[in-house]
Amino acid sequence: MKAEIITIGTEILLGHTVDTNSAWLGKSLSEVGVEVQRVTSISDNADAIIKTLDEILPSTNWVIITGGLGPTKDDITKKVLVKYFNDELIYRPEIFEHIKDLFSRMGRVPNLLNKEQAYFPKKAKVFPNKRGTAQCMLWEYNEVKYISLPGVPFEMEGIVEDYILPRMIKEQDHFIENRYFLVQGIPESDLALKLTNWEAALTETFSLAYLPSPGLVKLRLTCRGRIEDSDSLFKELDSQSIQIREILGKDIFTESLRSLEYVISDLFKKSGQTLATAESFTGGNIAAKITSVPGSSEFFKGSVVAYSNEIKIKELGVDDNEIILNGPVSEIVALQMANGIKSKYEVDWSISTTGYAGPIGGQGVTAGTVWLAIVGPDVSWVKKFSMGSNRERTISKSCLVIFNQLRLLIDK
Amino acid sequence: MKAEIITIGTEILLGHTVDTNSAWLGKSLSEVGVEVQRVTSISDNADAIIKTLDEILPSTNWVIITGGLGPTKDDITKKVLVKYFNDELIYRPEIFEHIKDLFSRMGRVPNLLNKEQAYFPKKAKVFPNKRGTAQCMLWEYNEVKYISLPGVPFEMEGIVEDYILPRMIKEQDHFIENRYFLVQGIPESDLALKLTNWEAALTETFSLAYLPSPGLVKLRLTCRGRIEDSDSLFKELDSQSIQIREILGKDIFTESLRSLEYVISDLFKKSGQTLATAESFTGGNIAAKITSVPGSSEFFKGSVVAYSNEIKIKELGVDDNEIILNGPVSEIVALQMANGIKSKYEVDWSISTTGYAGPIGGQGVTAGTVWLAIVGPDVSWVKKFSMGSNRERTISKSCLVIFNQLRLLIDK
Repeated sequence: MKAEIITIGTEILLGHTVDTNSAWLGKSLSEVGVEVQRVTSISDNADAIIKTLDEILPSTNWVIITGGLGPTKDDITKKVLVKYFNDELIYRPEIFEHIKDLFSRMGRVPNLLNKEQAYFPKKAKVFPNKRGTAQCMLWEYNEVKYISLPGVPFEMEGIVEDYILPRMIKEQDHFIENRYFLVQGIPESDLALKLTNWEAALTETFSLAYLPSPGLVKLRLTCRGRIEDSDSLFKELDSQSIQIREILGKDIFTESLRSLEYVISDLFKKSGQTLATAESFTGGNIAAKITSVPGSSEFFKGSVVAYSNEIKIKELGVDDNEIILNGPVSEIVALQMANGIKSKYEVDWSISTTGYAGPIGGQGVTAGTVWLAIVGPDVSWVKKFSMGSNRERTISKSCLVIFNQLRLLIDK
Repeated sequence: MKAEIITIGTEILLGHTVDTNSAWLGKSLSEVGVEVQRVTSISDNADAIIKTLDEILPSTNWVIITGGLGPTKDDITKKVLVKYFNDELIYRPEIFEHIKDLFSRMGRVPNLLNKEQAYFPKKAKVFPNKRGTAQCMLWEYNEVKYISLPGVPFEMEGIVEDYILPRMIKEQDHFIENRYFLVQGIPESDLALKLTNWEAALTETFSLAYLPSPGLVKLRLTCRGRIEDSDSLFKELDSQSIQIREILGKDIFTESLRSLEYVISDLFKKSGQTLATAESFTGGNIAAKITSVPGSSEFFKGSVVAYSNEIKIKELGVDDNEIILNGPVSEIVALQMANGIKSKYEVDWSISTTGYAGPIGGQGVTAGTVWLAIVGPDVSWVKKFSMGSNRERTISKSCLVIFNQLRLLIDK
């Protein structure tokens, strides 16, 4: 089965909203074997909406429309769709009850604009939105299903998970199966060379994609086929996966789509060991990533964000003479920070970072120069990197590098 | 002038990459008065690429194509475009020199796949990519300009800023001017009611959009017109902006597109005061956001991420009896954390957070229950919120709420 996505919202074309809905839908639909063929983003404009609906691909079974269902004047999706499907709006008291109920839980009362959201198209099926006031509409027309969803991600996701995905699963005859191999610290072209021979021998049923992002490459091995052939194809997929593992070995940090912090979190939970961090230029990002994983309190005790030299000295026991001698961005300061937090917070492992994230450097050191350190039960690691002058990139790449290094040190 | 964007990459349709490029392009192009009419995302598939090129909108002047220019086998954009424009690839030694130079700066040597990137279409104009190996191509065909850019954001942005935007500016006769008013903590429908009368009186040249995200609403007032009318239209835009300011007052935290952490950063830099944070469930996110602003070291001294009770007691001076009596998620613990970090780090202002971010609660407290506190020179503020069980949302909303409260307390 094939789908296309239409996202409606001038804010997307103006770049004030990043279209994360399409990515979420693409991932969720492909997991149930529905292929998203195209995503089209257009403005809140009736002509643009109608033209896009007129030009859906002939192979499309599902059209997923997001956005433009809010209570305000600039939201016109419902009105346009009602006209397009030659439908009419009728007042549905049960929807208004739901809206009132939702508001009362937030201690609020719906206003006139919210009441208008209880008018619903007569021919459409309603999928309730438990998390918001705009209800989901489904029309069936020329054997294509058109679904209109609210643009608020949290609300859209709830409806798709509760109603749309289960319905799609029921209607399948083909499957798409993806396997992932995530690698940190090896450039895309180097990976491609390692895999050249193996890749050349792949049959047409399989395809490999390289999905690079700063510091990371995701490899995606895809298998497509008919559900009736799935047994033999899954076996071949398993054997191809074994070959990738043999070629890349420990470079693969996960075969799920989980981030490195999840991988690390699992390692710590398994080992029963504890972790603390001392961060300078990463400013709390390492702690924030670790604590983004539910249950991280089992092993993560906390962090000192030592943004000033004063805090490095006072709270982490860094020697002020070393700062004078070597500067705050130096091997010795990185090691002293890691050792300082390790003994202060009484943990098994500690991480530290010190550097100039950019856009400018300092004290004769160029922007993007960083020292990263890890101290463990009977190992310590410290290394200098040049990450370039982009602040955000230097911080996010440093998090990846240090998490991957921590994985390799723990997982010995 | 009008543009459309075509993003090529199966990873986008599968949702493994969020299409941030289109958002960045949308913003950059609208700033120079070029309207993005449509964004189409398709897979790395020759038929899909050709069909999309065949169906560009008649009013389009610029077609911006991103992605599919990498060195690996799954990247086919260049090959397809060369065929589409009836062009041919020729080897350009100067491009290979550039690639070699780029690699040597990273201490690497290009491989065979990288050498292939030095083959360039004969009829296309080259815009050099200073940051990567895939060069940008421009074809002019039936008075439409087609530009093919690499998908790596950092590389794409560099080329657009250096070459594409300056060229677009030269060719303008219409303008689009946007003004923004960002509000925290007021629901979209409440804002809409406050603005109803003013909005109803707007002429067709102006339009207002509500761009909500969790905890925030961006209001965008847009004015479109011919460059020759710009003087009078800009005057009217100014007067409309004054009216919005009169209606919303202090609720507007900025009229730029800057985030609250930038607004706060400015307030601190102006006042010469200092800040530190003590974070429990936000796990370093508040510090990370503050330090995402260049120059934050001028006022931000650091943070203690106290993820365990032990650290709250030992490092922040929280009374262990209060934890036993009230639990760690309580008014008194939040206040003691804020006061503790304030005296320990010797700062003028401090922020603290304690709560259950979700997905589960603890000790009889439901997930999403949080206490936020701020202590300043002669003021303290502490408040309980129920943010729901979504971990990420609870953390990000808490950051917004506390930053906005800090702004209101400082800016008195």
